[in-house]
Amino acid sequence: MIRNRIPDIVVKRLVTYLRVLQDSSREGYVSSAELGDLASVNGAQVRKDLALFGEFGKQGVGYPVEALISEIAKILGADRDIDVVIIGVGELGTAVARYISARKRANPAYRFTVKALFDQDKRKIGSKLEGVVIQPLTELSSIGSSPLTKVGIIAVPAAAAQDVLDAGVAQGIRGFLNFAPIKLKSPPGVRVHHTDVTLALQELAFYV
Amino acid sequence: MIRNRIPDIVVKRLVTYLRVLQDSSREGYVSSAELGDLASVNGAQVRKDLALFGEFGKQGVGYPVEALISEIAKILGADRDIDVVIIGVGELGTAVARYISARKRANPAYRFTVKALFDQDKRKIGSKLEGVVIQPLTELSSIGSSPLTKVGIIAVPAAAAQDVLDAGVAQGIRGFLNFAPIKLKSPPGVRVHHTDVTLALQELAFYV
Repeated sequence: MIRNRIPDIVVKRLVTYLRVLQDSSREGYVSSAELGDLASVNGAQVRKDLALFGEFGKQGVGYPVEALISEIAKILGADRDIDVVIIGVGELGTAVARYISARKRANPAYRFTVKALFDQDKRKIGSKLEGVVIQPLTELSSIGSSPLTKVGIIAVPAAAAQDVLDAGVAQGIRGFLNFAPIKLKSPPGVRVHHTDVTLALQELAFYV
Repeated sequence: MIRNRIPDIVVKRLVTYLRVLQDSSREGYVSSAELGDLASVNGAQVRKDLALFGEFGKQGVGYPVEALISEIAKILGADRDIDVVIIGVGELGTAVARYISARKRANPAYRFTVKALFDQDKRKIGSKLEGVVIQPLTELSSIGSSPLTKVGIIAVPAAAAQDVLDAGVAQGIRGFLNFAPIKLKSPPGVRVHHTDVTLALQELAFYV
């Protein structure tokens, strides 16, 4: 299956399969039912998802864990290192930078690295967080323009978020995680994943 | 349509419709195409989603904005106030508490309130954040057991997250937002929404 034809929902599940397989200390083979159980997906769905990429499994035995991990990682491009550029070093930006750095320290194979930090607050500029100097937003061009290995994290107030996204796009960033509570417009080919605590709470509130 | 038969994916879209309608200063009528544009959903899907709940729209004119907002809010239960209980007052828990409180100050109609904070760090216990005293985890029972108006936010390290979830469930919390990088097991009737920066970055990395 052509890589950019994989439906978003399948990408989401593949990410989860990879994560639960990496987190479990399972060796040898895993059945679709077991993998489904770990990932909270039903077994038939697991088989369908994995069948999209050819013949992984062995009838009656399951999938070889190690090969499955490396195959999914390859499909997802999860075998590359990714530089993370955080824009907005308030409480949320700081928390995210600390979180990523802690994961990296705990596991050197963790492939995300906080590479650059930007803020417009003069009191923050020049100070360091997790060994990275906080730069003024006007220096965004310093990150270089290779789009293949970078994601941006937008952790500024809603009113500033669209400008920040546009500036990041102009510098070649093609994937953003947006924490600002606002829906952003992005050009084709640019991916924005919106993580909004209020929306998540609202969804939960429906169920409680 | 019976409330708990609404598919999760429709709930997710309804939350988005509500949010974009509330954020837009639109008055009068909105067409399905316009609403779809605001919510990044196609117009046919908007019509299909809203048709599940009866006849909202007017052929050729669209949906009356005010009535639509209050109808979706009613469906989602978004007309109730919800108490938020944050467990783990590290950087992420602090950032989330500040964010929710700031939203509440900016808009008194915002219906989430940080009601209780818990941590096991003796240096934090007894101090205040956003006017709320940080209590030891052992006091979790102080939140009372009415399940209808509470959600829990889990912002502890992965190793502690399952215990925290179990303790929250024992105290009657039925909805959780989990920031810990681990998949949690929950009993039927309990909803756990997993927000994981690494998973979100991994998903983005696929597209860049």
